[in-house]
Amino acid sequence: MNAELDPVLLTPGPLTTSLITKSAMLRDWGSWDTDFNSITRSLRADLVDIVHGRDTHVCVPLQGSGTFSVEAAIGTLVPRDGKVLVPQNGAYCKRVVRICEYMGRPVVELPIEEGKLPTGAMIEEALLRDPAITHVAQVHCETGTGTLNPLQDIAQTCARLGKGLIVDAMSSFGAIGIDVRTTPFDALVAASGKCLEGVPGMGFVIIRREALEKCQGNSASLSMDLYDQWAYMEKTSQWRFTPPTSVVAALRAAVDLFKAEGGQPARGKRYQANCDALVSGMQDLGFRTFLPRDVQAPIIVTFHAPEDPAYEFRTFYEKVKAKGFILYPGKLTEVDTFRVGCIGDIDRDVMRSAVRAIEETLAEMGVKQISHHKIVA
Amino acid sequence: MNAELDPVLLTPGPLTTSLITKSAMLRDWGSWDTDFNSITRSLRADLVDIVHGRDTHVCVPLQGSGTFSVEAAIGTLVPRDGKVLVPQNGAYCKRVVRICEYMGRPVVELPIEEGKLPTGAMIEEALLRDPAITHVAQVHCETGTGTLNPLQDIAQTCARLGKGLIVDAMSSFGAIGIDVRTTPFDALVAASGKCLEGVPGMGFVIIRREALEKCQGNSASLSMDLYDQWAYMEKTSQWRFTPPTSVVAALRAAVDLFKAEGGQPARGKRYQANCDALVSGMQDLGFRTFLPRDVQAPIIVTFHAPEDPAYEFRTFYEKVKAKGFILYPGKLTEVDTFRVGCIGDIDRDVMRSAVRAIEETLAEMGVKQISHHKIVA
Repeated sequence: MNAELDPVLLTPGPLTTSLITKSAMLRDWGSWDTDFNSITRSLRADLVDIVHGRDTHVCVPLQGSGTFSVEAAIGTLVPRDGKVLVPQNGAYCKRVVRICEYMGRPVVELPIEEGKLPTGAMIEEALLRDPAITHVAQVHCETGTGTLNPLQDIAQTCARLGKGLIVDAMSSFGAIGIDVRTTPFDALVAASGKCLEGVPGMGFVIIRREALEKCQGNSASLSMDLYDQWAYMEKTSQWRFTPPTSVVAALRAAVDLFKAEGGQPARGKRYQANCDALVSGMQDLGFRTFLPRDVQAPIIVTFHAPEDPAYEFRTFYEKVKAKGFILYPGKLTEVDTFRVGCIGDIDRDVMRSAVRAIEETLAEMGVKQISHHKIVA
Repeated sequence: MNAELDPVLLTPGPLTTSLITKSAMLRDWGSWDTDFNSITRSLRADLVDIVHGRDTHVCVPLQGSGTFSVEAAIGTLVPRDGKVLVPQNGAYCKRVVRICEYMGRPVVELPIEEGKLPTGAMIEEALLRDPAITHVAQVHCETGTGTLNPLQDIAQTCARLGKGLIVDAMSSFGAIGIDVRTTPFDALVAASGKCLEGVPGMGFVIIRREALEKCQGNSASLSMDLYDQWAYMEKTSQWRFTPPTSVVAALRAAVDLFKAEGGQPARGKRYQANCDALVSGMQDLGFRTFLPRDVQAPIIVTFHAPEDPAYEFRTFYEKVKAKGFILYPGKLTEVDTFRVGCIGDIDRDVMRSAVRAIEETLAEMGVKQISHHKIVA
């Protein structure tokens, strides 16, 4: 039980959670019991409040990873004769396309270079070109690179043109401000084990009630029918099928900590400080970020791998891990990179220690040439 | 953190788990890290071993509740032009039918009265009547009533007739002996939070490798494609999408305890002793079981509700809970019942204490007439 001695996870979820959050799992909850039902009820309300959606939106939690909730949102919100547009600038956008293809919903990609941004104007053009498109599926923070896509612009475009918007806000929810009153959407998907700093095991979808009310019969999956899950929860306060009780209890504790910290503004500020400390420390070592600063989300940073032939990711990873920090591999096919997350129950001092661990590791490995314009002594 | 003072869950999962199992969740695991991958790998091997399937079968774990895994097994194993027979004697059988209907797989019910058993002969007749049927989906322990269906007879019939068998062994796996060498099946579904005494949040499917190898392209759901999950795991030892890391770690600890106890034979024996203590204690109070003894699984027992007008389930439940025991509502539409689980990290002394709590509660409520042939003084 040396919880304090575990390595720090600098990964985009699962991440390092507080001991208070983990300790909430030291209890067995009856999934039919009123004590547990009241947790579900209060969580659903708190999650909607984070995007100021109390008057218009409902929260439908779902068992499984965040991807299950993305699939459930598409399968429930998009009618079987609907058509989905996916502005595509990274691995998680590609996953949305694959989800649509699997379930047989027609899907169109709007290809954008990785690290470049889609805009409302680009999406408007694509929508006008193909009037059969009923929904846009937009990834907010593309975790594959760390890119923050301009959600408000895109949301307002969709609203103006009368198209449904489904947002994958997996790695941004709780950290980047989203206000449904100025960033309108039909559905927004996130999960327990990301910026809310819970443990992984459940997702949730914030859905515009008027849109959801029309969705009965859309889903071809019982488990992932968010209409059915919602209707049952409204009636009973219970989940239709066994909930991940410990994950739910941990999320309750994590959201309490989130509120005590000051909610999204405070959390976003801490992550930005983490990101700034990381990037400036790494730049001092000679590393270059894959993204320019103005599109970089303060969630996860992609760095170009050192150019020195003495560098090899696996060894680098293991040595940094031995010093107490777990890094994340890159997810780009064309460029050699690795990623470092800025999220979780960590602060900028932790980020500075991580940079020191990376510096020491490079020295041990004899890696000197970090990039073509910087050689470490 | 008064884990010891929590009420005992006499429910069919989530259930009371040991503090050792819960404590395994006091750590943050990187889902990409080798330490976590080795947990996944060892768990998959151990779960296959429980049904003696090492030479023929593989284990594919899946995020979500057990129902997600049932749906995934049907969606992956049954081809799109396949047809499913469901011997139907309870709520969980009905759920399998509903899953098939949702995903558009043709399904035929073989209706059997609740509490009565399907037999190999009945299934053979149904299969001969409709040669288009490709698969039988059989619930092992029907938790809606507590009925133990005769799996070996049914499995041998399916094998002889060359039909695929998918078993929902959610509430029996680990407690009731299943040996794939004498009870052949294509797929068998169970979950973390049942008789293995882990916490809920993941299911798993034990699948005949030769059957699974032919299943690419069957699933209409990316998240629930067990072929894709398996192929990726074999290659990387990782889950395709974020695993419920704390649930997986808890299951690892729980399976270690399971093995230390003596595996399935020892666990089955303890649950049988729990069940015997419960039933005989309740009979002494005048309660009647819904099922005759020979079809009763030692997992969960359905009791007829007291006939006394002073009885009301909600009050009864709350009062028994205040004494430290969480009961479970009945799931029969035609008869007023409640259920008491025999599974979890509990022994027959706990069951006897539960019976005493029930006795005291009835006295407090002024419930005297338990059944027409027994009046409590």
